[in-house]
Amino acid sequence: MTHDHVLERAFHPKAIAIVGVSRAEGDHPPGYTGLSFLRLLQKAGFEGRVYPINPKATVIEDVKAYPSVKSVPEALDLVIVAVPAVLVPHVLEDCLAVGALNIHICTAGFGETGEAVAKEIESRIRDIALKGGLRVVGPNCLGFHVPSARMQMYDNIELAQGPVAFISQSGGHAQAYVMQGPAVGIGFSKVISYGNALMMDSTDFLKYLATDPETRIVCMYLEGVRDGRRLTRLVRQLNPQKPVVIWKGGLTSVGARAADTHTGSLAGDRDVWNAFFKQTGAIRVGSIEEMADVTMTILRLKPSVGARAAILGGGGGNNVATADICTEEDVDVPTLSEETRTRLLEFVSLVNQSVVNPLDAGSVFASTLLLERALETVAADPVIDVVILHLGANWRKWFSDEAMAAFKECVSGFNRHNAAGKPVVVAVQDHGQGEEAEKLARGLREVGITVYGTLRRACRALRRFADYHKFVEETKTGV
Amino acid sequence: MTHDHVLERAFHPKAIAIVGVSRAEGDHPPGYTGLSFLRLLQKAGFEGRVYPINPKATVIEDVKAYPSVKSVPEALDLVIVAVPAVLVPHVLEDCLAVGALNIHICTAGFGETGEAVAKEIESRIRDIALKGGLRVVGPNCLGFHVPSARMQMYDNIELAQGPVAFISQSGGHAQAYVMQGPAVGIGFSKVISYGNALMMDSTDFLKYLATDPETRIVCMYLEGVRDGRRLTRLVRQLNPQKPVVIWKGGLTSVGARAADTHTGSLAGDRDVWNAFFKQTGAIRVGSIEEMADVTMTILRLKPSVGARAAILGGGGGNNVATADICTEEDVDVPTLSEETRTRLLEFVSLVNQSVVNPLDAGSVFASTLLLERALETVAADPVIDVVILHLGANWRKWFSDEAMAAFKECVSGFNRHNAAGKPVVVAVQDHGQGEEAEKLARGLREVGITVYGTLRRACRALRRFADYHKFVEETKTGV
Repeated sequence: MTHDHVLERAFHPKAIAIVGVSRAEGDHPPGYTGLSFLRLLQKAGFEGRVYPINPKATVIEDVKAYPSVKSVPEALDLVIVAVPAVLVPHVLEDCLAVGALNIHICTAGFGETGEAVAKEIESRIRDIALKGGLRVVGPNCLGFHVPSARMQMYDNIELAQGPVAFISQSGGHAQAYVMQGPAVGIGFSKVISYGNALMMDSTDFLKYLATDPETRIVCMYLEGVRDGRRLTRLVRQLNPQKPVVIWKGGLTSVGARAADTHTGSLAGDRDVWNAFFKQTGAIRVGSIEEMADVTMTILRLKPSVGARAAILGGGGGNNVATADICTEEDVDVPTLSEETRTRLLEFVSLVNQSVVNPLDAGSVFASTLLLERALETVAADPVIDVVILHLGANWRKWFSDEAMAAFKECVSGFNRHNAAGKPVVVAVQDHGQGEEAEKLARGLREVGITVYGTLRRACRALRRFADYHKFVEETKTGV
Repeated sequence: MTHDHVLERAFHPKAIAIVGVSRAEGDHPPGYTGLSFLRLLQKAGFEGRVYPINPKATVIEDVKAYPSVKSVPEALDLVIVAVPAVLVPHVLEDCLAVGALNIHICTAGFGETGEAVAKEIESRIRDIALKGGLRVVGPNCLGFHVPSARMQMYDNIELAQGPVAFISQSGGHAQAYVMQGPAVGIGFSKVISYGNALMMDSTDFLKYLATDPETRIVCMYLEGVRDGRRLTRLVRQLNPQKPVVIWKGGLTSVGARAADTHTGSLAGDRDVWNAFFKQTGAIRVGSIEEMADVTMTILRLKPSVGARAAILGGGGGNNVATADICTEEDVDVPTLSEETRTRLLEFVSLVNQSVVNPLDAGSVFASTLLLERALETVAADPVIDVVILHLGANWRKWFSDEAMAAFKECVSGFNRHNAAGKPVVVAVQDHGQGEEAEKLARGLREVGITVYGTLRRACRALRRFADYHKFVEETKTGV
């Protein structure tokens, strides 16, 4: 694929104009405006030049303001437009006049309102963009968020750089992902909120990311797609090299109605999308949480890890639920081999416990020697691909700080050295104690352990992960 | 139904013996032993007498110890047995000799291990119990937890009294419920962990609770049931008066295998259980979280509340997900009537917002006057039964303490006074920020607002709640 060098400048701009920046007056209300973009760029330490455009101001936030993009003294790599819809066509004419080709229209109130006047403005925007070869992103979106360029489009986040791109038709979902990604080790190359997709659609960004060296995994949130065939072709091509993780929203009729009022999208038919996923092998998720889970899994586990799990937790009733959940989510919980069980029974009593799988063997948590022996024994079983430790939130209380540190070292040490190459991951169980569960998860993540918020989430991620690699393998060998 | 007056004494005992209490030595390891039961009763402030039984001790935890139940100087209302399996038959003979009829066998290592010697001990226990009319609970369980009698069987909990009973084949699940119930306003009449159900089965407790004046709602966690017909008959009879909420574990084949190793239960067939729920109208749940959600709903909402929801949150992408989730969980999100939409548009701008439903109208959260007007307008629409506020965890940051207090007062005030009699409830969205979400939820619950952990959980609870009342109504009128 050929690289879009015009668009490239929008992701690593030297000069940005923001059209429609009101003068700063104390605290800013929640929501996104020209002023909030200016402040976010300053906060992120953006190293290029920013030009606030406001015909009535000379300085805003200690930055010289200009009356229009035409008065800016250098070539603009990106113009962020945050003026009312009716003024947008005029701004685009100005951009055209100075050769500023990358335009992010933040303004909402276009086709998604269903109003005739808005549709008319959209059609004028389209004409200008086509005439001048403008790359128009939006309207009704938050545009480009690029940690490596210190371009921040969301507040209250950690600006984490990494190999994950996100193409999102929703600014809210993009915000959710950049908020929760860093906690589980996900950093971003490019996050693109593109809203109504009047001109630039998901496929245009996908094409760009295919040849972007900063991007190894592509996540997408889609409501509508203009060219379904192009999407299918691009995803099928890209997915084997860079896993494509997709959340398709609005597949229920009420969801489709909401998508129409959100981005003016036609959300499309469930059968068509089912066929799309089957053909492309793209990884299907249903929420930002699932997107983060599967992305984290791709980043952390070896491609060879399958979805046959040994579950080690504790509590018999718990294990019945555990088994039901795994089976519902299509993760195998095979009976351990007789040899493995015999070896476990050398140090695990059967009173109040079980070594079938899920293992009800809380006693091994009493000492890291026992735990390590249990992990080694279970991981060596050829029917097992991955070991899931299923830990309750209240579990933290039972351990001294020393015992907890020893536990962490035991698990992370096992993952570094285990001969069988099978990972031990953790699934947390909150029992209504979200804060405790969060603390437990955070402590484990700090030492590099892969932690899922619930067992169901672990199973879903592992299943999708294994299916992805199976699909790629089979496609490669032509099975 | 006739009341079981023998069993009654176990729930409000004057004298309890605990057989198998080792002498206290410093901190106690996690897990349940005779000594931990003694300490828990002391901690709870149990007002009757407790007799630790240990042939080698004279005093344990400042309480006089006795060599056997036969040496205890008064009639025993309950005997807790925590000695190794092989010694249990002998203890039961002693109980029989002194007329102690209620026996809770905590000890594990019976039929669930699959070992022949354990099966043999079980058969001796059965013979003794049948001979003497003993009410044997267990083995392999935690027995009776009765807040009103200050009998506590679980540690690190709030001893909350209330109208909810829980009959649980798993001690772990019972613990999970008593841990998380109080936070959402659930107090307990009786919590019964009954393990292997060698003698007393779920149906025996159900029969007791049917005539128990302290109990208004019955929750159950079942792995196996000995007499399915009796269960069906009892639940069908009880459910219209006291809602019966049931989690049936082990319905997958792997889950059934785990149930066998847990309580030695035959978990049974999915079709049979589907028919059971259809015939009885019992409320089906799949986890302790769902059990708590639906119980909270029964305790707090009027029976007339149906499952046609107006959702008020904010964020367009969010609302697409919201709509999809509601539809997947069978909660209606009707388009608001034209009259309602016209009234909303008097104060809600369509730019970046929508009043179709889900409502994307973040602007009304800026003032309680607007919010109240929005709630009133939406709740007055005849197509709506309930209003769900869908709030993000990060939402707290946008509000000053005063604004948050005003918001809480607005919602709880609306619920006290609203003319349409339709409740406003809250569903929290954590965006990977569990701690923030928990704080938000707690703050709202403190002022009496009904809060669900996620929108999906809210939908599931509201759907089950509405279905329950529909079933009861239709059964009553013979539709």
